[in-house]
Amino acid sequence: MIGEIIAIGDELTSGRIANTTSVFAARQLFLAGHEVYAMHTIGDTPELIGEALKRAIKRADFVIVTGGLGSTTDDLTNEAVAKALDRPATLNTALLEKIHSQLQGAGTSQIGLEKLAWLPEGAEVLNADERMAGYMLVHNSTPVFFLPGVPSQARKLLVDYVLPIVSSWIDNSSNHVRMRLYKTVGLPEYEINERLNSLEQYDCISLGYYPVGNEVHISLTVSDQDIHSSEDLFSATDKRIRKVLGHHLYGTDHATLPQVVGELLQENNLTLCVAESCTGGLIGSEITRVPGSSQWFAGGVISYSNHLKEILLNVDRQLIAEHGAVSGPVARAMAGQLAKRTGSRVAISVTGIAGPGGGSKEKPVGTVYIGLFINGQVKDTLHNFSGNRREIQEITAQTALDTLRLALLVE
Amino acid sequence: MIGEIIAIGDELTSGRIANTTSVFAARQLFLAGHEVYAMHTIGDTPELIGEALKRAIKRADFVIVTGGLGSTTDDLTNEAVAKALDRPATLNTALLEKIHSQLQGAGTSQIGLEKLAWLPEGAEVLNADERMAGYMLVHNSTPVFFLPGVPSQARKLLVDYVLPIVSSWIDNSSNHVRMRLYKTVGLPEYEINERLNSLEQYDCISLGYYPVGNEVHISLTVSDQDIHSSEDLFSATDKRIRKVLGHHLYGTDHATLPQVVGELLQENNLTLCVAESCTGGLIGSEITRVPGSSQWFAGGVISYSNHLKEILLNVDRQLIAEHGAVSGPVARAMAGQLAKRTGSRVAISVTGIAGPGGGSKEKPVGTVYIGLFINGQVKDTLHNFSGNRREIQEITAQTALDTLRLALLVE
Repeated sequence: MIGEIIAIGDELTSGRIANTTSVFAARQLFLAGHEVYAMHTIGDTPELIGEALKRAIKRADFVIVTGGLGSTTDDLTNEAVAKALDRPATLNTALLEKIHSQLQGAGTSQIGLEKLAWLPEGAEVLNADERMAGYMLVHNSTPVFFLPGVPSQARKLLVDYVLPIVSSWIDNSSNHVRMRLYKTVGLPEYEINERLNSLEQYDCISLGYYPVGNEVHISLTVSDQDIHSSEDLFSATDKRIRKVLGHHLYGTDHATLPQVVGELLQENNLTLCVAESCTGGLIGSEITRVPGSSQWFAGGVISYSNHLKEILLNVDRQLIAEHGAVSGPVARAMAGQLAKRTGSRVAISVTGIAGPGGGSKEKPVGTVYIGLFINGQVKDTLHNFSGNRREIQEITAQTALDTLRLALLVE
Repeated sequence: MIGEIIAIGDELTSGRIANTTSVFAARQLFLAGHEVYAMHTIGDTPELIGEALKRAIKRADFVIVTGGLGSTTDDLTNEAVAKALDRPATLNTALLEKIHSQLQGAGTSQIGLEKLAWLPEGAEVLNADERMAGYMLVHNSTPVFFLPGVPSQARKLLVDYVLPIVSSWIDNSSNHVRMRLYKTVGLPEYEINERLNSLEQYDCISLGYYPVGNEVHISLTVSDQDIHSSEDLFSATDKRIRKVLGHHLYGTDHATLPQVVGELLQENNLTLCVAESCTGGLIGSEITRVPGSSQWFAGGVISYSNHLKEILLNVDRQLIAEHGAVSGPVARAMAGQLAKRTGSRVAISVTGIAGPGGGSKEKPVGTVYIGLFINGQVKDTLHNFSGNRREIQEITAQTALDTLRLALLVE
């Protein structure tokens, strides 16, 4: 099934908010084997919304519209739908009753919220159990889904309702499609492209290359009418890709680098601690995004100031005075002392200059030392990253995790 | 000037990558007084790219295209431009020489990279000093900018070249426009809407409401042909908005919550420490995004495990056993002990259950205690947040910072 996604809201076209819902929807649809033809983001302008909607319905198998369903005066999606598709707003009494009952005793005015119960003619509410429900319309045989702009609500409705409905809709293509996403660290995109280019020898194999921060993701899609030849081709190509990428490949599909590191630590019965200077907590924050990370992550120290390096990490003041806080010896001391203090068998540390200030001729902005304590031994590596402050922090966090991953692979 | 933005790449329509460049561009254009009519994201399909490009050129004052300019085989923007605008690829010899000289001795193959020197007829390179230059075309009197998909490169070209060129282009509208963005925490969107609705009494005043995580941003736009009445109306409306929002307003335009907290700390000559459990370093990470935060942030402890709460924060084991790690007494002990240990006069702590596991009937997922040590006194507050794991971590970090902001306001 080929779809289009339309996101609505001046907050999006003015760049005040990143449109995470469309990205989430596109990813889920991709992983479910569908294709997104185009994604549009349009301000709160009924004419433009209507135009985009009519064009999408004409050429796509399904359409998803997010945003503009709220209670405030700048929410105009239903008005646009009414005009463009000639479906006037009609009162959904069941929804209105729900709004009234949910607000009872809440002490807030109901006038604005009653607007939520007026839906375009033919709309079917997706989740009758919730107030901000979202709805579906079938227009000229094309299913059109309308979801709220609030990301958490849209995501839930997307996973629980939209994806199942889209997948059960009759698909005109009878091709058997297999897909996999390969995630790598440490190789530039053009080099991966050169190494893998020859694999696209048949029309039914296609590869895509996607730089994501310091990572490069490679998608493999095999699409063939014959299910057996499609499967054979897929597994043969998969093997060759894995061989070519080697240890640069850290995982596939939904895997994230912190999650893969966590699995390796658990396999080895190890617990990790972090000592973060220039990343200020970013490594710990990325790690604790992973559900269940408490199984292999103990925590650590944000030693942003030198004072905290001394009192929380027992780093010798003399060592800092001699080599500077951004140095190999201090990185080693941070990791080693933290491991000693906490009893962790693995510790990583980072100390560097994220900028924009603080750089010097000898140690320019982007100079970062990463320390790793493992198996009773401590090492450090020097890196020269480029980018703005946040980019340097992000690549530092990622490189620290990948340094640990590579060390665990040889365990 | 009214513009359209077209982002190109299967990595975007498949949702593998969030389109941060379009968001950045839209925000910069908005803040410079321009308007973005619509933003499109299109896969690596030359026909669709060409179609969107032609439509945008017809109706917008300027067009920005990002992505698809790279060296790999799936980069098809130039091919699409050649066909849609009838501007065949021509070799830019200056660019080719630069590519050759930069690659000399790099030991990598140059074949793929030579592709970067073939640009559509009439293209003017934006930054002649760099290899991945981006270019500009004037088609039917409309300036069209082509930028690389790599966010850092696109952002730099956008700020250094695109914005100045767009702003100096002749603007047909002679209206005087003033804009401001108000950023709030702690009030629901519909309540703000109700409180501010009456301000939109004139056609030339418009307000927009944008929920951003736990924040709500409100944009004020005043547009009038007369510069004096526009200025007067703007300052009168600005005053009323500030009064209505009160202490919920933490800043305007580019301000971020961590930055505002940092300014308040500096005004009071205070240094902050953090003790983070369920946020795992996110508070420190958000704080250290702010350039110069080392002036007012010392660091802290990621006390993810109870063991680290004991050994790094001196939290009494008995206290944890008695009240649980997620409790008011433990939150107070974390903040108080950290301040004592580091000598900081301000410390914030968080301990909670981010989920998906770990919840109980008494303390369900979303239960969070925030501790605040300030002026020698320590307090805690209980919160019941909802959302997925990451959302709970984010709202916890934000609420902790806002708790500190409100405390500093009464200093």
